[in-house]
Amino acid sequence: MTRGRFIVFDGVEGSGKSTQMPRVARWIRDRHGEPVTTREPGGTALAEEIRRVALEDHDEPLPKTAELLLMFAARSVHLNNRIWPALQAGHWVLCDRFVDASFAYQGAGQGLPSHDIEQLETMVVGTQQPDCVFLFDLPVEVLVQRVAQRGNADRFDRAETDFHARVRTMYLERAQRRPERYAIIDATASVESMTRTICDELERRFAG
Amino acid sequence: MTRGRFIVFDGVEGSGKSTQMPRVARWIRDRHGEPVTTREPGGTALAEEIRRVALEDHDEPLPKTAELLLMFAARSVHLNNRIWPALQAGHWVLCDRFVDASFAYQGAGQGLPSHDIEQLETMVVGTQQPDCVFLFDLPVEVLVQRVAQRGNADRFDRAETDFHARVRTMYLERAQRRPERYAIIDATASVESMTRTICDELERRFAG
Repeated sequence: MTRGRFIVFDGVEGSGKSTQMPRVARWIRDRHGEPVTTREPGGTALAEEIRRVALEDHDEPLPKTAELLLMFAARSVHLNNRIWPALQAGHWVLCDRFVDASFAYQGAGQGLPSHDIEQLETMVVGTQQPDCVFLFDLPVEVLVQRVAQRGNADRFDRAETDFHARVRTMYLERAQRRPERYAIIDATASVESMTRTICDELERRFAG
Repeated sequence: MTRGRFIVFDGVEGSGKSTQMPRVARWIRDRHGEPVTTREPGGTALAEEIRRVALEDHDEPLPKTAELLLMFAARSVHLNNRIWPALQAGHWVLCDRFVDASFAYQGAGQGLPSHDIEQLETMVVGTQQPDCVFLFDLPVEVLVQRVAQRGNADRFDRAETDFHARVRTMYLERAQRRPERYAIIDATASVESMTRTICDELERRFAG
């Protein structure tokens, strides 16, 4: 049984990742059989339960470091109980967000040290990294515009805009550092054109 | 306001830690005001909730690494929301079990790499280490006997006995490496004699 391919879609909000998931899944299905589509944080009932503890309101503060540990605990569950078994069984796995989101949002966004996140990545993911990460990239002005169109225009003050700029920079730095694993997708392109770019890239990387 | 002292009681099961807690707390109260007594894992409502996720039965396995991350997430909550604020307010804190238990039970006992646990310790505890750790030590034969007297005689097969031997060795190694922080307590001694040893040690270390 050939191991499946582990494909991640990651990037800033409003970049159209979720729209691309079923389109790319169809392309995979026609060539490599039914893929497993999943998302972070979450992915299994237990991972969701851990995520719920991390996200719900409590009568006491959740330290940022504790939140990071909970996210990686949920990721460990997701990898061990869902992603790796599916890959072993020969399925391709399409995952919406993965470790890059931790580096971008909790690291660059919230100020947690990259060094800590790298150590957790080594502990939890180890050498079983994704075969390909598609990074959906969007200029921050476009992101702000898109989120505004979703009806959350008030959300973006100066601090929020800076936050998203830091997040985007971290995503791009990580993608540029490892071109053999990452492909940057221009998320200002049309839905059809993005699907074509992604599927061409998959063909090119994993043909045969 | 002088910062309080952070005192940990740790060591193998059946070693009498819990019996000593209120006795030593009384000694502290008479000299340094009301101490905060607490325990791991747990210590706050949120830390207990995280602990519950780690310990309860699920329909899917909890990977050992995920369990370790949950334990350290709970510890981060406990430190930030209970222990450090109490120390800052000038209280002494007496804590039943702390990081040594992770090294002993999850590291030496269950086989998780000490290296991972050290990294989590740095991330969560950093330089705000306990001022003194009392390690309650017991030969494994005595531990087995004591647990048997509690009515759990069946529990100890060969594998369990080996497990507890590894746990004890790890505790002792850690204590011997840092005599300035650790004090080893012979837990075969009488209750009264142990209290006296502990309080003498506190007097010696933190007089004035």
